Amino acid sequence: MGEIASRRLTVTDESLELYARITGDRNPLHFDEEFARATRFGGRVAQGGITAGILNAVVAMDLPGAGSVFMSQELRYLAPVRVGDEIIGEVEVLSARDDKPIVRLAVRVTRDDGTRVLEGEASVYVMRP
Amino acid sequence: MGEIASRRLTVTDESLELYARITGDRNPLHFDEEFARATRFGGRVAQGGITAGILNAVVAMDLPGAGSVFMSQELRYLAPVRVGDEIIGEVEVLSARDDKPIVRLAVRVTRDDGTRVLEGEASVYVMRP
Repeated sequence: MGEIASRRLTVTDESLELYARITGDRNPLHFDEEFARATRFGGRVAQGGITAGILNAVVAMDLPGAGSVFMSQELRYLAPVRVGDEIIGEVEVLSARDDKPIVRLAVRVTRDDGTRVLEGEASVYVMRP
Repeated sequence: MGEIASRRLTVTDESLELYARITGDRNPLHFDEEFARATRFGGRVAQGGITAGILNAVVAMDLPGAGSVFMSQELRYLAPVRVGDEIIGEVEVLSARDDKPIVRLAVRVTRDDGTRVLEGEASVYVMRP
């Protein structure tokens, strides 16, 4: 228990464009600087799904690793992420089932300026061949 | 209250590849047919972030619309989505704050064969210029 893993990625204009191509999310908050500047955000921000997506990478690539899939996620988005920000996704094992390959994780995403942008918990099933 | 919106998208090999480019999630469950076939899934599946991502599009493009951002999400992943599946993302307004532009939504994603693949709730802040 208590095992921790993390990874980093830099959010780029391409990230926002590719995420929009996958999902259809072309919110002007992400693509229209004039619209976004006139809101409380004061400028364009990344889709929340990109911020959350680094957690998919941490569980798949690092901890628990290959074969991991989210069964559930409870996520709170705390602050925006902008083009050019580096974000750090971190997961920490809270508990593991004895009877099934299921782990409960604390999940966190932090900007490189130290601001926490996402936090929550998740349950992961580890699907092994 | 009770207002509903939905949209559809088809998950393709390109969706999986672009999602991996954005996030770094190269789980063999998504890319290694042999690995995936040997698991309970019986074959490759899409990243959960793609399934959840259609909800980002529904809130941004349809209801509540432009300027919407997730404040929180509680998501339960119920069944896999595969390349070639069409998915339908749906949100339903459960309540709206009087004092702030915040709405509470029920969220659901369904495969075109009728199987519910994701369900949960979310709070959305509507950031308007």
